[in-house]
Amino acid sequence: MIETPYLLFLGDAPDMLAAKVAIGIRDWRPENAVGQLRLPGCGADLGLPEMTLAEAKAAGVKTVVIGVANRGGVISQEWKKVLVAALEEGFDLASGLHNLLREEADLRAVAEATGRKLHDVRVPSVKYPIADGKKRTGKRCLAVGTDCSVGKMYTAMAMEREMHAKGMKATFRATGQTGILITGDGVPLDAVIADFMAGSVEWLTPDNDPDHWDLIEGQGSLFHVSFSGVTMALIHGGQPDALILSHEPTRVHMRGLPEYTPPTLEALRDMVLPIARIANPACQVVGVSVNTQHMTEDAARAYLAKVETEMGLPATDPYRFGAEKLVAALAAI
Amino acid sequence: MIETPYLLFLGDAPDMLAAKVAIGIRDWRPENAVGQLRLPGCGADLGLPEMTLAEAKAAGVKTVVIGVANRGGVISQEWKKVLVAALEEGFDLASGLHNLLREEADLRAVAEATGRKLHDVRVPSVKYPIADGKKRTGKRCLAVGTDCSVGKMYTAMAMEREMHAKGMKATFRATGQTGILITGDGVPLDAVIADFMAGSVEWLTPDNDPDHWDLIEGQGSLFHVSFSGVTMALIHGGQPDALILSHEPTRVHMRGLPEYTPPTLEALRDMVLPIARIANPACQVVGVSVNTQHMTEDAARAYLAKVETEMGLPATDPYRFGAEKLVAALAAI
Repeated sequence: MIETPYLLFLGDAPDMLAAKVAIGIRDWRPENAVGQLRLPGCGADLGLPEMTLAEAKAAGVKTVVIGVANRGGVISQEWKKVLVAALEEGFDLASGLHNLLREEADLRAVAEATGRKLHDVRVPSVKYPIADGKKRTGKRCLAVGTDCSVGKMYTAMAMEREMHAKGMKATFRATGQTGILITGDGVPLDAVIADFMAGSVEWLTPDNDPDHWDLIEGQGSLFHVSFSGVTMALIHGGQPDALILSHEPTRVHMRGLPEYTPPTLEALRDMVLPIARIANPACQVVGVSVNTQHMTEDAARAYLAKVETEMGLPATDPYRFGAEKLVAALAAI
Repeated sequence: MIETPYLLFLGDAPDMLAAKVAIGIRDWRPENAVGQLRLPGCGADLGLPEMTLAEAKAAGVKTVVIGVANRGGVISQEWKKVLVAALEEGFDLASGLHNLLREEADLRAVAEATGRKLHDVRVPSVKYPIADGKKRTGKRCLAVGTDCSVGKMYTAMAMEREMHAKGMKATFRATGQTGILITGDGVPLDAVIADFMAGSVEWLTPDNDPDHWDLIEGQGSLFHVSFSGVTMALIHGGQPDALILSHEPTRVHMRGLPEYTPPTLEALRDMVLPIARIANPACQVVGVSVNTQHMTEDAARAYLAKVETEMGLPATDPYRFGAEKLVAALAAI
């Protein structure tokens, strides 16, 4: 559990693309994003108050989050000046970088001396159980994609926001590093040992109130041969009651796999439902989430209407047009 | 790669059940099983020559393999006397135990001093790539089960033996600790980090001669919610040309999951084939392997005949009745 709120460290990020994590925190947990700290030459700007470490301290910040990708896979000396000072000021550090904070001897030494925590969210910090498949109380929803990176996390985030606005009980359950940094908690599923994948998802989504929904962050795709095993473990560990099909219609091949064509929404539905019903015979596909970022608004609306007709399911781009339809579909279960 | 041949250390195993690994080596790689070493009170006997370490050395043994499960999860002092002496005699050690050889300070120190290797086959020793899904040359066969522990490894082993007897090119590819100890090489798939599972299977089954078959050791089951993600990665990383359905007809519930009923062979076929065709559109289900150990011979033969009629596929218990039918089905592809 990462202590909130955060100061978002943007370092010398060349552009906004490099600041994906920080943008996610600002968009989905604005109450956690108190300010930003940038180094000279930083090309990213979240529009948050610029803060020194002292100002962040005065504003109640608990953790400095590295909200950007670093260059060349190393934590530079320029970054370290800030990170060491942050530890000495009494902040914890949190990072989703491949090169771990804890692997930097100086950061580790200062953290120990100051009694602060280094959160490397790429690395599991829990000894997860092997899944037992027992039915849990409460309800669970999972977005499954025709491909990786089609908007599954944003779908779950948008649904959570809409459900909270409607007074429904809902919790976003992070399964990836960005989601974990945004919410401060979760399972870094892609880094879990194979035998414990499904168990880690059970652990993440325990018994809950009968009218409570876990909105589980999806990962990978059943059709993506590099990561389909991770998706499978999410489906069987999460035992979802409701599935959302997620799609990006302009994708010409599977992400990172030029030889593989993305499946249709129908093919995804037909494959995922019998798989999901092994763990939860009551599971239903309740809606479609389309990432229309590369389409004009007219084209997006026309596409969504076509999907609704063809699939007989509510379809929306929850980021662009809101998640109401998907939430209404959940409420109807 | 573990150097062969082996001396099989049976320790103080209470009975043959505890000696599963050693039995597998004796049955499937008899040329590697030069002798056995037992402690007083050992209740297991493989029928191999009893050897002291000195005799094993003279017989050309390279590695002492711990062929039994240990009691209480600790490597006892009685065992260590033998293991330390083995290192000092110049043998490597190999083990599939949960408690690792390398975690024992004394064993590690003696191994370093003597320049010998400690092989803990539960732990991956390779940095596997992320799967790229590219089509590889050569052919691959994978046994997929209605449940865990239905005989998938024995099926692949029996097929390899039969194929070698027929002069066919075939290699058993181990994906579990027993298989790795038997053959001296492989991937401990259940211990691989989630993101690299499929990549480790690609690594294990690289390009090969067009008429060469990899016989990939199966793991888990698509219908076993604890481990289905591992099975999925095997299917998509292995991109099999041929699938064998493996079944144990007397099983009343999924192994370790009392709430889950094993699927029919038809249900397994219908689920696995579209999944496998994502990675290899030419994939076919070519046969059925039935574990009939809990059936009389008459009942077994009647059951196999029924399966052949209902499924339209050759069916055998490869351990009891031979693997000829399955090999003939592969040869026909």
